[in-house]
Amino acid sequence: MNKQAELDSLLQDVAKSGENLTVSDRRAFLRKGATFLGAATAAALSAPSVRAAMPPTEPAYGKSLGSPVLANPYGMPSKYEAHVQRRTVEWLTPDRISSISFTPLADLKGIITPSGVMFERYHSGLPEINPQEHHLMIHGLVERPIILSMDDLMRFPSVSMTRFVECPANGGMEWRGAQMDRLQFTHGMLGCAEWTGVLLSTLLQEVGVKPEGKWILAEGADGSHMSRSIPLEKALDDTLVVYAQNGEALRPEQGYPVRLVNPGWEGNTCIKWLRRLEVGDAPWYHREETSKYTDLMPDGRSREFTFVQECNSVVTNPCPENPMTRPGKIWVEGLAWSGRGKIKHVDVSFDGGVTWRQARFTSEVFPRALTRFGIDWEWNGQTALVQSRAVDETGYVQPTYAQLRAARGENSIYHKNAIHTWQVNKDGSVRNVQIS
Amino acid sequence: MNKQAELDSLLQDVAKSGENLTVSDRRAFLRKGATFLGAATAAALSAPSVRAAMPPTEPAYGKSLGSPVLANPYGMPSKYEAHVQRRTVEWLTPDRISSISFTPLADLKGIITPSGVMFERYHSGLPEINPQEHHLMIHGLVERPIILSMDDLMRFPSVSMTRFVECPANGGMEWRGAQMDRLQFTHGMLGCAEWTGVLLSTLLQEVGVKPEGKWILAEGADGSHMSRSIPLEKALDDTLVVYAQNGEALRPEQGYPVRLVNPGWEGNTCIKWLRRLEVGDAPWYHREETSKYTDLMPDGRSREFTFVQECNSVVTNPCPENPMTRPGKIWVEGLAWSGRGKIKHVDVSFDGGVTWRQARFTSEVFPRALTRFGIDWEWNGQTALVQSRAVDETGYVQPTYAQLRAARGENSIYHKNAIHTWQVNKDGSVRNVQIS
Repeated sequence: MNKQAELDSLLQDVAKSGENLTVSDRRAFLRKGATFLGAATAAALSAPSVRAAMPPTEPAYGKSLGSPVLANPYGMPSKYEAHVQRRTVEWLTPDRISSISFTPLADLKGIITPSGVMFERYHSGLPEINPQEHHLMIHGLVERPIILSMDDLMRFPSVSMTRFVECPANGGMEWRGAQMDRLQFTHGMLGCAEWTGVLLSTLLQEVGVKPEGKWILAEGADGSHMSRSIPLEKALDDTLVVYAQNGEALRPEQGYPVRLVNPGWEGNTCIKWLRRLEVGDAPWYHREETSKYTDLMPDGRSREFTFVQECNSVVTNPCPENPMTRPGKIWVEGLAWSGRGKIKHVDVSFDGGVTWRQARFTSEVFPRALTRFGIDWEWNGQTALVQSRAVDETGYVQPTYAQLRAARGENSIYHKNAIHTWQVNKDGSVRNVQIS
Repeated sequence: MNKQAELDSLLQDVAKSGENLTVSDRRAFLRKGATFLGAATAAALSAPSVRAAMPPTEPAYGKSLGSPVLANPYGMPSKYEAHVQRRTVEWLTPDRISSISFTPLADLKGIITPSGVMFERYHSGLPEINPQEHHLMIHGLVERPIILSMDDLMRFPSVSMTRFVECPANGGMEWRGAQMDRLQFTHGMLGCAEWTGVLLSTLLQEVGVKPEGKWILAEGADGSHMSRSIPLEKALDDTLVVYAQNGEALRPEQGYPVRLVNPGWEGNTCIKWLRRLEVGDAPWYHREETSKYTDLMPDGRSREFTFVQECNSVVTNPCPENPMTRPGKIWVEGLAWSGRGKIKHVDVSFDGGVTWRQARFTSEVFPRALTRFGIDWEWNGQTALVQSRAVDETGYVQPTYAQLRAARGENSIYHKNAIHTWQVNKDGSVRNVQIS
């Protein structure tokens, strides 16, 4: 307490002297301050403890002119954030043309995923499209088929909505017990953005769907011509023909100049580089909805058209990339999401699911969007098992691995939404473990 | 109508043949389609008319492999969007060290401003700060002064909120009749982001404000040590100590590693590169709240501490950068915002304020955030005067220039929020004009 009083006195001297403090005064103060702070903190401050030491001198940038405006007409993150980038798992796919990269969730805050680090999924690589030459055809069982330029598309009423997009293979490696060593790899086929575009229902009203029209084929302009069948009911609900993400034109990796977003549904239905929408009377049963993106059940049959990404959540701090640096209070946070609507409730456990405490939401809560939750935790330096369990507005509760396997068997790759466990070790490191 | 029927028939042939259509078939179809579309559209389609011609051949990217994943571990906009960037007005400031750049509002969608193109304002240039060496001191009339490292700061409960930041000089050149030739320059000292950080009220609870503490000085770590006095009432309301913007760490231009955001208040109070918060019993009357950022009134006195950015709005399409390309239906849209709360209502006029029609909101409506509005318009090819007028939830109505000048005179630079007028000329070009 003496040291704290001394610190207070020092700090108040600075406060009084204000702008008149000389550089050498500052140096003397800061050196002394640094000495005391190391000892004063843990005892004196209720939460979280302060371990800071002030730099011994005024930094150079505080005594000089910096860079001018427009040094970067399009700004980028600081060089100190260069580690925040997409990454991939080398053994996951035979090559990087038909492959996937992962969002660095451990480094992200809030619910918006920066467009530059949102996961990528290609079936034949990334095309480079000139929007002046791109068109979207809407045809099939419609009264008035149309071919729209990008300029035409932007003449329709637009709407913006914040929604997640998740690959149904997210966490798929964990089904049979693989335990990836990064949050980026366990849950990073996931992102959330403010999407702007034209509701597909608006375009369907323009073309006039014939009574026998029940399904819509969406097809991409890339080399794979990736395609999926979408039920008309969804198309008339909230499917969006998107040209902008987080305020600006889609980036090439996200479907520039135009893509589909089916909020809350499998990411692969959100066809990128969209060139064609065809209305038909039945699904097309193309490759990516038969041999892929179906779930093999214990009886040998496959579930197909399992569109909805069920309620899920994960703790993002701590996690393997964000180890504990010391015992004491920290702010534990994470993300929850559900393809069925809003997140209603998230509980967090620190003892592997024996006891639970309710987290609070620290972001906006939108339907079919990432929702940020947080909760205080005082870590005692012992081994802990950190879990989160989300409930959505339909009452659906995120399952345990045992519950998920009881319902779906052991053969699936997609739609893994089991409660995830981080083991915090005594040395502060965090490990991915599975608790049934 | 014959041509339309022919087009329908053609399109349905394509639909039936589906994936089996050969490239030469496609070429034949597309050539024919292109011929017919030019004629068929304006008559047959209710809105908006289709003028597209399909490219005569399948583009190369549809027949080949594209780039692999992680070609860009941190993705950037398409090269076709290179024009979307910050810009400045060369004559506005003597140099670019103490200067400003402008957000390219005409190219943006939704309400999130991409961090890379959000306007910059420096008082002595852009510092490059290593977050490992940066600290935030909170002291003055407090019980327990602290010095926090970035790691310490992130141990406090965090919260995310979408809010605008606007320089009070936004549109200042228009006060005396300058008519800038771009929306970027008339309204581009403005942006909106999802900000994540720690509520200042949380930190003030930590340090314990003494009863006599009424004001807070916020000071930056840059060479200017830019500082502003903030009333305690605001600090305890929604002032946020921010370390992340749109999901990732602040970018250097926006205050990396930590800044203040005072939602709805003058952007200059949102101190960037924040290093110090001092609690005092009165404002400090520093340079940037006396000689600058005050409003000279007709009687020779100056308004000071005019923190709130009053209700404002502007049409972003059409605008000088987005001219009309042809008569017919287009989607007119714009942005509205108020420092006092939510936007309640926006009207749009196409005849310089003689008649008004209510626009609808096409984004989320948050307090103290940009709000996107839109309205259908059928342009008849004649001269038009396009305006928007916003009303906020307090009932405040955006004023005309005449009303603003009656209240504030002719000498101000800051807080220009008059109803803005775009003149659409017969050739489709759009000009900035002032209507009192």
